[in-house]
Amino acid sequence: MSTLTRLQDLQFSQHTLNKFATLMAAGNGYLGLRACHEEAYTEQTHGMYLAGFYHRSSAVETTELVNLPDVLQMRIELDGEIFTLLSGTVTDYHRELDLACGELRRSLVWHAPNGKRYQIVCQRFLSAAQHSLLCSRVAITPLDDNARVTISTGIDATQTNSGRQHLDETSVRVFEQRYLQGCYRTLDGSNELVISSFCALPAESCSSFYAKNRRLTQHCSGKVAKGETFELVKTNWITSSLDSDYHSASCSEQALNKLMQCVERGYEQLLAESNQVWETYWQRSRVQLESQNSQDQIALDFALYHLFAMTPAHNEKCSIAAKGLTGEGYKGHVFWDTEVFLLPFHLMTQPEIARQLLSYRWHNLAGALAKARKNGWQGALFPWESAWSGEEETPEFAAINIRTGLRQKVASAVAEHHLVADIAWAVDAYYQVTGDDGFMRERGVALLLETACFWMSRAVEANGRLELHDVIGPDEYTEHVDNNAYTNYLAYHNVERARHYLQQFALPDDDFIRQADRFLARIWLPEAREDHVIAQDDSFFSKPTLDLTSYKEQQGTQAILLDYSRAEVNEMQILKQADVVMLAYMLPSQFTPAQLAANLDYYEPRTIHDSSLSKAIHGVIAARCGRREQAYQFWQQACLIDLGDEPHSCDDGIHAAATGAIWLGAVQGFAGLTVECGELHLNPCLPEQWQSISLPFVWQGVRIQLTLTHQQLSVTSSSEKPINLHLGNTALQITRAATFSLADFFTPLTGSGTTKGTPL
Amino acid sequence: MSTLTRLQDLQFSQHTLNKFATLMAAGNGYLGLRACHEEAYTEQTHGMYLAGFYHRSSAVETTELVNLPDVLQMRIELDGEIFTLLSGTVTDYHRELDLACGELRRSLVWHAPNGKRYQIVCQRFLSAAQHSLLCSRVAITPLDDNARVTISTGIDATQTNSGRQHLDETSVRVFEQRYLQGCYRTLDGSNELVISSFCALPAESCSSFYAKNRRLTQHCSGKVAKGETFELVKTNWITSSLDSDYHSASCSEQALNKLMQCVERGYEQLLAESNQVWETYWQRSRVQLESQNSQDQIALDFALYHLFAMTPAHNEKCSIAAKGLTGEGYKGHVFWDTEVFLLPFHLMTQPEIARQLLSYRWHNLAGALAKARKNGWQGALFPWESAWSGEEETPEFAAINIRTGLRQKVASAVAEHHLVADIAWAVDAYYQVTGDDGFMRERGVALLLETACFWMSRAVEANGRLELHDVIGPDEYTEHVDNNAYTNYLAYHNVERARHYLQQFALPDDDFIRQADRFLARIWLPEAREDHVIAQDDSFFSKPTLDLTSYKEQQGTQAILLDYSRAEVNEMQILKQADVVMLAYMLPSQFTPAQLAANLDYYEPRTIHDSSLSKAIHGVIAARCGRREQAYQFWQQACLIDLGDEPHSCDDGIHAAATGAIWLGAVQGFAGLTVECGELHLNPCLPEQWQSISLPFVWQGVRIQLTLTHQQLSVTSSSEKPINLHLGNTALQITRAATFSLADFFTPLTGSGTTKGTPL
Repeated sequence: MSTLTRLQDLQFSQHTLNKFATLMAAGNGYLGLRACHEEAYTEQTHGMYLAGFYHRSSAVETTELVNLPDVLQMRIELDGEIFTLLSGTVTDYHRELDLACGELRRSLVWHAPNGKRYQIVCQRFLSAAQHSLLCSRVAITPLDDNARVTISTGIDATQTNSGRQHLDETSVRVFEQRYLQGCYRTLDGSNELVISSFCALPAESCSSFYAKNRRLTQHCSGKVAKGETFELVKTNWITSSLDSDYHSASCSEQALNKLMQCVERGYEQLLAESNQVWETYWQRSRVQLESQNSQDQIALDFALYHLFAMTPAHNEKCSIAAKGLTGEGYKGHVFWDTEVFLLPFHLMTQPEIARQLLSYRWHNLAGALAKARKNGWQGALFPWESAWSGEEETPEFAAINIRTGLRQKVASAVAEHHLVADIAWAVDAYYQVTGDDGFMRERGVALLLETACFWMSRAVEANGRLELHDVIGPDEYTEHVDNNAYTNYLAYHNVERARHYLQQFALPDDDFIRQADRFLARIWLPEAREDHVIAQDDSFFSKPTLDLTSYKEQQGTQAILLDYSRAEVNEMQILKQADVVMLAYMLPSQFTPAQLAANLDYYEPRTIHDSSLSKAIHGVIAARCGRREQAYQFWQQACLIDLGDEPHSCDDGIHAAATGAIWLGAVQGFAGLTVECGELHLNPCLPEQWQSISLPFVWQGVRIQLTLTHQQLSVTSSSEKPINLHLGNTALQITRAATFSLADFFTPLTGSGTTKGTPL
Repeated sequence: MSTLTRLQDLQFSQHTLNKFATLMAAGNGYLGLRACHEEAYTEQTHGMYLAGFYHRSSAVETTELVNLPDVLQMRIELDGEIFTLLSGTVTDYHRELDLACGELRRSLVWHAPNGKRYQIVCQRFLSAAQHSLLCSRVAITPLDDNARVTISTGIDATQTNSGRQHLDETSVRVFEQRYLQGCYRTLDGSNELVISSFCALPAESCSSFYAKNRRLTQHCSGKVAKGETFELVKTNWITSSLDSDYHSASCSEQALNKLMQCVERGYEQLLAESNQVWETYWQRSRVQLESQNSQDQIALDFALYHLFAMTPAHNEKCSIAAKGLTGEGYKGHVFWDTEVFLLPFHLMTQPEIARQLLSYRWHNLAGALAKARKNGWQGALFPWESAWSGEEETPEFAAINIRTGLRQKVASAVAEHHLVADIAWAVDAYYQVTGDDGFMRERGVALLLETACFWMSRAVEANGRLELHDVIGPDEYTEHVDNNAYTNYLAYHNVERARHYLQQFALPDDDFIRQADRFLARIWLPEAREDHVIAQDDSFFSKPTLDLTSYKEQQGTQAILLDYSRAEVNEMQILKQADVVMLAYMLPSQFTPAQLAANLDYYEPRTIHDSSLSKAIHGVIAARCGRREQAYQFWQQACLIDLGDEPHSCDDGIHAAATGAIWLGAVQGFAGLTVECGELHLNPCLPEQWQSISLPFVWQGVRIQLTLTHQQLSVTSSSEKPINLHLGNTALQITRAATFSLADFFTPLTGSGTTKGTPL
């Protein structure tokens, strides 16, 4: 494997503190830790989050992922000068996140205002091997003179979510004059948290301990000779009552024992253990490119790093938040993003995680059934925003309009129902890739059945057919429409799949089958016009258009809403993201090649791409149209959603779905690897700038490595089991390994390499 | 009047940010605002507090003075550089608090990292004329080039008390694209707060408004030519449901109207209106010295500035917190400090405030009666720590011992009962100075009666007499003792005064009189030994002593508790402050001159002065002993409690009682002005370093100005009413004005000027 990317931050700047705190955040699916500097900055937002650890601070607030007490921060005084990169001067500054293992490293020489120079090296990692473990190391070397080093660090529970406090401090302790421990409980009493820390220090240094105002602090100080190094290694063990092995009575002792065991092993050994887990991950999932643009590999490594970091694989009662575990955007809530943009990656690399993500929904069926009933429907209406309980977490009213003082009802929770079908779509996708009968019997069919029931009750009689009225599709700039194409097709697919699996697993429910048949026969599926374009909804074509050039230049900023009200935008052909393009991505078999191209060309100019979910999907569709240059442009732009130059676009966390979409663009778009009707298809459309793409995936339990160039495909499998693969329109069977010349399967396009086409 | 002190901070340092934020805090008795810089620093604790606005954030926390949403902070960007004194270089730095009017001013030239220079001038004041009004002004002049200025400021409700959140944000609004308003409610729903702000900006600048995450922010930006000034004036109006004219329904509109009226008047006029109030204050209260040490006048001006700032004269349901309105130390609670250390100043300069402070206790009698009953006693046992409700706010258990995990019961709330008698002592003092019959009839006698009843029920039969067992005197290093001299004498005084006023106001309660007579006849009043020393308590003399030299050198730090446990300290003759010396201060007529000197000399070497209440009282007693050099040393040291060099001693707020004690030392100590048995006494003992002291006071409704030198006394009165005054042992009557040669009244001490003595 080629060396993994090291994400670099080569210049300290207050303006990009939070961008890099997000981009370089640590995560192991259990914990997430923003990449803040050890020393404090007023512009820097500290954050540590534990998957599933939600709380609602008061009746007027929303449930949110709790910002945990801080263990990262260190107040460093060197010969009485408080260390900050704002004062004095800084040379040899280098900061990097090693995506291979998640270790964050920083080194610099600080020329303090007192004229003395100090070399400072900081490292840290969240263990991939032991989820509760966070280690950090600070090494300080005075370059000009002997120095006095004072470091204050501990467990700081003054942390809040923008001023909202979620935790009571129930106990702070120092054991054996060495081990710090803080115990906390959510204000509602429902969850507990235990944080234990230990600082390894030079033998001749001394420490004192204080607890005051929600801070448990160790003041460490010592002298260090010129050229010698003062090293502090802080080991932290963070557990919560969400852990399966958590016992309230023994949690303090248990945590302390775990911490002591870790302390004994030391930073390097603990890092090595963690690195092994990462190594396996990269072997199983890394997409490797040979590209003219080195940024492409960086984007993929970046995406996959965060896909690991954000995914709570340890607990099927957790799912993936819209910002992962990197920030407080969207309050840590779970959206359809998970099933549609993130689950496919896991499904093709670690299908047990896909299963776990679907199980999260299954565990929360009760809330979805309740929400449907509350609104007068049947079946399961999953919450638009979901947290721990499965109840709807979207606030009923949006934030106050500061000019009018009014609050509007949040439309998404009221009408953005497509996520119900999206979940069903993911269940079907899961079974197609895994053939996991057990899951389907226990959980999958129940999810399909209840979601199907929702749609059947949701449809209304109109125009001599069944229609879906007053919905919002993925395009949130068009609200409360009838027969949104995305929704109607996905609902059909939902009911059809439910009916299918019910029969496949011989679960007799004649009443449901009858209802489903009636629904499938009568639900309106918007048809393509003569020009192959499908209307996004009933009213869409009747609306005026607007030149969106200037808004597209500022895409992602919702600048249109500064010029037009939401109501005005709603009455024009202005899309945040294109529903029909998205539909084409979700259900490719529903579209002819002509329809694919026509809808892309019709909707794209009307789409601002203000949603981070938009660009990469357009890229996949462009690739499926054989337009590799356009596809590559879309994909590259999608890669910049977090990695681009804009200094504040990801301040409140990474765009989790966008990382999944980077993988989707490469694998489903350029490699053209898709699953249709239970079969594996490959229709590659490599960008001209790429010489090759190599990727691992799992198909029906078999690990496969696939390498594509413009000329050939080679496939190796980990098993003797033959693999069926459609290369273009040709069905192939591969055992162990095979290489194919693409020219045998596809018509080369004049002058611009191979593209999707009819087989030779 | 000589020019009032301008308190200076001539060098920006991160190490002293919070010291100066406290020392230079603004206050008008209604609001207090820490003197933080406009730009944020991680080491800087922001704080704005409203008198009486308390809340308890959760069941495991203590009621505390709420840290209000911040309106002070401004994020200033100059040509894209974030302004902070940590970066670039700073010249011409000057910061001063003008004690004459409470205006805080700062000016500096910032040499930004981009190489350009900007002159920055900041001013602010809390209005003494309109309590809800806070104005600040920032003026930025680019010195080298045209500049782009961006200032972000607004109402920031992410503020907490060390992570404890007290407020829900109920509404944030921008009216007329100009006026910001945030409405908040305490989590328990009991109180509301409305903050309204307006930024006046140069005409050509532009603004945008955002509300997110408990922050309502105005982004102001504009261009300014080299040498021209970009000025922002921010006017803020802060009101709460504690205001007598607060109406929940109209509060928003009412506040907005008030804000608009202020905005129209402008910074200078608003400041001028406030200055008038300050001017009157200084005229009525300023103590003026001619001293060899300029620090002496600074200390007095500093003390009196804060005595104004901390005193909620607008609302008799509020009293003075131990840290005033300058910080979160002691959670904003009210202690005996108010009656004993702060009330005397008000009583002698603005007696209606003394009345108001006593009324605070009267309003809270119900809580005091309940606390006594709960503990099996009668009458009123006032809470050791008091906030809004009059209930005991001292937590039942102290903070966890981080080494043992145990929590100890807080002894003060359980046994430090002398505050009951201290309150009675203040009621008597109030009447002696004012002769306010109305207050006594309505409130004063009730306070005396209920406090007296407490003592009568608190006393136990022992050794053939009544004793007071298991108490703590002011000396908190000696806990749970029997017959603490301070407590027993003050309890006697309490009952005696109750009996006296009950008879004076002909309120018949024969039963009480009988009980009181019995108590007064039988309560044990520890007697002086042959060497004139009175035992602090029954067991005191039997305890061993310890050489306290090293602890006295670190006084105020409680360093002894690092070497000895509280239990060990309790078993030695080690005092935090000296009870018998304090008793001599409170009830001077109980002590002969010989006893005064003997007790000072016995107890002082055993006293560490770890209490900020200790030094100044020792100074008063030394002055009464005629030891002017010793008295002056004590007083000067007492003046350094906040003003000294220690950078962190007042981080969490000013030592309010210590400011009162600075006045006490000068007026009761050196001027020797006391009230005994309803008569005014003057026994001056000026330090050699002072040429004169001049002070105003009120006696029986008459404003009097008194000027003392070593040779003479001059008195002028504002009224024709004759004033009776005992100069030494001679009774004088003064009408309008008179001057006396002190040599006619006092024996000069050989070689060292006049001192207290027998009359000539």
